[in-house]
Parts: sequence; structure tokens; C-alpha cells
Amino acid sequence: MSARISTLAWQKNAVHLLDQKVLPAEVRTLICTRYEEVLAAIKDLTVRGAPAIGVAAAMGIALGALALPADSSEEFQKGFDALCDQFAAARPTARNLFWAIERMKGCFAENFRPAESVGSIAGETAKVRQALVVEAQRMAEEDVAINRRIGQQGQILIRDGARILTHCNAGALATAGYGTALGVIRAARDAGKQIQVFADETRPVLQGARLTAWELQQENIPVTLITDNMAGFLMKQGRIDCVLVGADRIAANGDTANKIGTYSLAVLASAHQIPFYIAAPLSTIDRQLSSGAEIPIEERPDEEVLAIQGVRIAPVGVAVYNPAFDVTPGCYISAIITEAGIAQFPYESFLEKLFSEKS
Amino acid sequence: MSARISTLAWQKNAVHLLDQKVLPAEVRTLICTRYEEVLAAIKDLTVRGAPAIGVAAAMGIALGALALPADSSEEFQKGFDALCDQFAAARPTARNLFWAIERMKGCFAENFRPAESVGSIAGETAKVRQALVVEAQRMAEEDVAINRRIGQQGQILIRDGARILTHCNAGALATAGYGTALGVIRAARDAGKQIQVFADETRPVLQGARLTAWELQQENIPVTLITDNMAGFLMKQGRIDCVLVGADRIAANGDTANKIGTYSLAVLASAHQIPFYIAAPLSTIDRQLSSGAEIPIEERPDEEVLAIQGVRIAPVGVAVYNPAFDVTPGCYISAIITEAGIAQFPYESFLEKLFSEKS
Repeated sequence: MSARISTLAWQKNAVHLLDQKVLPAEVRTLICTRYEEVLAAIKDLTVRGAPAIGVAAAMGIALGALALPADSSEEFQKGFDALCDQFAAARPTARNLFWAIERMKGCFAENFRPAESVGSIAGETAKVRQALVVEAQRMAEEDVAINRRIGQQGQILIRDGARILTHCNAGALATAGYGTALGVIRAARDAGKQIQVFADETRPVLQGARLTAWELQQENIPVTLITDNMAGFLMKQGRIDCVLVGADRIAANGDTANKIGTYSLAVLASAHQIPFYIAAPLSTIDRQLSSGAEIPIEERPDEEVLAIQGVRIAPVGVAVYNPAFDVTPGCYISAIITEAGIAQFPYESFLEKLFSEKS
Repeated sequence: MSARISTLAWQKNAVHLLDQKVLPAEVRTLICTRYEEVLAAIKDLTVRGAPAIGVAAAMGIALGALALPADSSEEFQKGFDALCDQFAAARPTARNLFWAIERMKGCFAENFRPAESVGSIAGETAKVRQALVVEAQRMAEEDVAINRRIGQQGQILIRDGARILTHCNAGALATAGYGTALGVIRAARDAGKQIQVFADETRPVLQGARLTAWELQQENIPVTLITDNMAGFLMKQGRIDCVLVGADRIAANGDTANKIGTYSLAVLASAHQIPFYIAAPLSTIDRQLSSGAEIPIEERPDEEVLAIQGVRIAPVGVAVYNPAFDVTPGCYISAIITEAGIAQFPYESFLEKLFSEKS
């Protein structure tokens, strides 16, 4: 059923992105024929969600590579590196972006043989360009398959009749398809379980109200929208069975960066003895970081807080703090659901085991 | 300095209300010459905040009483009771509304002597009408004086350099003037302390973004606006020294109903060992209720969540849960600051002592 939502696709040397800025009022696709358009779409949240950002960047790099000048091997190599650098600077927090760029760099390195003579450059670069396009498309396909495995792994944790609180959008819209947290919900539903979702609206950008509510409606999964500050009161009333969210970057010790507000939910869930789950692919895990303290947290423009859909809600001149993410310590996370299995605290050894089993 | 903000006033047989629906974009006063206009203003949040609702209702009742038909004593008495009933049905949670109505009923009973003959009714009702107008104005004056005493009591708890998180608006705009939680902040500032305020925007109605940010700007008190879901992350970073909010109704055991989101803040403050303070007049305390479980919680229209300032943010047809308040158990509250002194857990005896000292 999630086939209805096409978050991103490579078609005829263009990157098609569902414009998530205008959802749910409009279902509009942005067709990018130049890599700069993909780059801008990542920066301005036309496409968002860690896995989707990764795949979009891969496609953007493939698109950029198609147009790279290649009068010499050096020029082609330098152009490719600069292209990758631009995408790496697009957004700082989501691990999948850097993972995707590394993978595209690996594909480039594997396929590119610097030519000795000018005459052979054209053939060489054509082969590389083609390999990059194929790799980006493969990453999109793999992402959907990975999410289906995350769903299968995670749905075991969800009981029939569960009332699940989610934050932001970790659905088909945040990935190449199916979703991570919402993938678990889809898999639980497909396993015959009745599921009820409470969706935090997720200020400031309202991914919950605009995207999660819409996506779950498309799937006919019952969803109730709340403002972010209602979550604790629902928990106190015994109306939430678990919290289930995605992730933007997970450190080796399980500390998890995710949409701002996730940390508060984790503390509240702990106080109410409610399980708190993260669903994410292994590509979100940054084994280079020993703890969440090392994860860079993006601060976004004041305007996101000061205005909603262009309507100003606060007085002129007021100061704003607008971190896009926060970090939830691993000790607050009941389980991290990946395509390779479910990890639990303490996460270092658990996550290492999942990586070693995968490879 | 708070004289700049005139939340409500009785002037020439009309109730002047600062229209809080249009702040901060516009500073506009609604002049009510009929009680129905005051009633509507309470319901639609033109005037809001428990103490302000109480005083507005008193003025609305006085206004209504001026126009009550009085062909007989019975008619006048019945009309007055019906008037009070209408105000009592305006909003269910704020204790001050019912407190104010009881006081106006007391004023009526004290001044009204049912006339034996039709001839003396006019003089009798004129006296009562005048007494009600005087009483409503007195309640407004008293409210400001009480808030100044709350400020004096509470500012002792605030250290120089404190970074205070507040939620919703418990300021001059929520009272007849000076404010409860913001009154404590004003008093601390006037005592020479440097104060920095973080204001939750307070979805769905955005009293923090629209009202608190504006009110503190008028006072030149440094304020930083955040979305509600950022509070926990700020606490984790060690950037909040205390949480200070108002109240809509406090049970005998200290359980406190306040704007939705307050409970989450109290749990988060507890988890971070940050003091959590309530500032409210004794008129907010409902000694008839043994615990917060008995406090009626108003649920407001879905539209408040589905749209912001008239701009739709969620898909059509999505279900919404919109409680306007939540209840924070007394055990999470470090202190309740009243005009008669500061109460601490366990609250039953402390609050009783404050009432007995006052009377």
C-alpha cells in the first residue's frame, strides 16, 4: 500500500522528489534536472528524513556527475570531490547523508581509472557516470528492502491493540519507501494487529501534523493528532503503550540524535515505564562516535519558530533558539530496531554484533 | 512599568478588554457594552488566564446586572442567578471564575433586600447594581495588589542571573495586572536581579509566543522563544535554573491544573533536579477538591490544533485530541507561591495554614 507514496525516484536523468514542504495541502513532485536543485531541496526540507536525505544526495551526486566537465582525469576527479563536498555541507546531523556520500565515493573509486591519454577519457567517464546512476538507484531499492526488514524485526515488539506515540515523520516520506518507525507500524498492521497511532505535530516544521498524519491516512491506519506538549498527559492517563520514533544519527553507545522533542519523550516514557523504541537502518549508526555528545546538532533559522506556513506568530525582534535535533541517551532507549536485529542496552556490544552478523 | 498593559478595565459602564486573540500583531481593545460580549470574550479567549477570567466575569456580571429587568424582586433575583449561571458555564477549569461568581453572588445577597412593594424596587435594585459595579472594580484592584504580594513572596526563590523557563502566559495579560509567574519575574528584576526567560510557545493557542514574548519585551526582560518540545533538551544542557508557571486550579493536596504541557515540564524538571514552581493567588485554590483527579479538564475545538491563525496545517479528516489543561501532581511541585506565603509538599497542611493566616 505504501507504493502510493513516491518520496523520491530517478527517472530519465532527473531526480523526482515529492515536495514535502507543501504537503498535505498539495501533492506536488519537484523534478530536478540539475544537481543544484537536489541540493537546495535537501537544505530547504523539500526532502527530509535521514534515509531519504541519504538517497536523495546519492541521486543528486549521480545527477551532478552526469554534467561534470572531464577534459582531464584530474578535472573529473576534482569536480566529483567538490560535488560530494557540497552535499556533505547540506545538513550536518543525519548520518545517512555522509554514509551515502561515502558509498558514492566508493563507487567512483571502484569504477574510475584515470586515463593516460585525453582520447580515452570520454569512455572512462561515461562508464563512471553510468555506475554512479546505477548505484544511486540501487541505494533507493535497498533502502525500501531494509525498511521492510526493520518492520519485520520490530513488529514483534508491538502487541495487538497497541496505542503507539510517534514524533516527526519516520515513514515512507522519510525514506525511499515504507519507513522505519512507520515501517514497523505497517508491518504490525500487516501481521493482523490493530494499531492506533498518536502523532505529535512536531513543531517547528510540523512533520507530524503535515506528513505523518497524511501518510497514515493514506494507509487507513487510525491516527490522532496532538500538539507536542500533550504527550506526557496522554502517558499519565495510561493511553500510550509505547513510543516509536526514527533516528538521524546513532552513536556507538546507542545515544540517538533525532528530531527535537525526542529526548523529552524518552524521559517522559521512562517516568511512566513505557517502552521507548528507535527504528533505524544500520546506515544511521555512526560507529566513529563513542557517544552522542559528539553528534553535531543543526540549528535552523529563527523564522521556522517565528512563523508557521508564512504566518507570523511572535513579536518582531524576539530571540529564538531553534535546534533541529536533540540527543537521547542510550539508557532511555528500550530497544534499537535495525534490519539486522534488535539491540538493547548496553548498546556498544549489541550494535557491534549486528554489524558483524551483517558483514 | 506593567501599567503599559491594560488587560481589562471598567470604564463608563463598559468593560474594556485587551483583545488577546490578535496580539502581538495588533494591540486592540474590545469595548463591551453588553454582558454577552464579555461572555463571548471569555469563551473565545479574547481574555484568558485564570485570574483575568475571574475579574472579567465579575465585570461581565456587573454589566449584565445594570440591564436586568426588575419589575419584581423575584424577577431581579432570577435574572441575576441566570446571569451568573451563564458565566459559570463559560469555561470549566479555572477556579477563579467560580470564585469570582461566588463573590459577586455574595455581594448581591449582602446588598439586596427584596422589596415588598413595586414602588421601592427601583431604588433597591439601583443600590445593588451600584454595589456589583464597585465590587467588580475592587476585585480588579485587589488582583493587582495580590499579584504584587505573590511577586514579593516568590522573588526570594529566584537567584541573580537565573534562567527561568515559563509556559503559557501567567503575566499581566492573564490577570488584572502584574501577573503571577511573570509577577515573580518582575519582582525579581525590580529587586535588582538579572533574569533571563525562556518562553515555551505553548501550542495550540500560542500564548507563549504571542503573549509572554510580547509582554516581556514591553518590560525589557530578556526572553528567548522556544517550541514546547525544546524544553527538555535545554534542561539537559543545564541551561534552565527553574520552571515557573501559573495555575488554573489547585486542589487541596497541591495537584495543579494548568495549561496543557505543564505536567510534562514538571516531570522533565524532576528528572533534571530543577525546581518547579507554581505562582497563583489563593483564589485559584479549590479546597473542596481533595485531589487533581476531580478537576474538570476542558477539551477545546479540534480547529485549534488543525490550524494556526487560520492556516490549515494538517490533512482534512484527521482525528484530534485537544485538552486545554493537564494536572501536575503536588509531588512534582517544589513550591506553590501565593500572596500569603510559600507552600511546600505535603500541601494539605501548608495550604490550610496559608488560608487560616489570611483570614
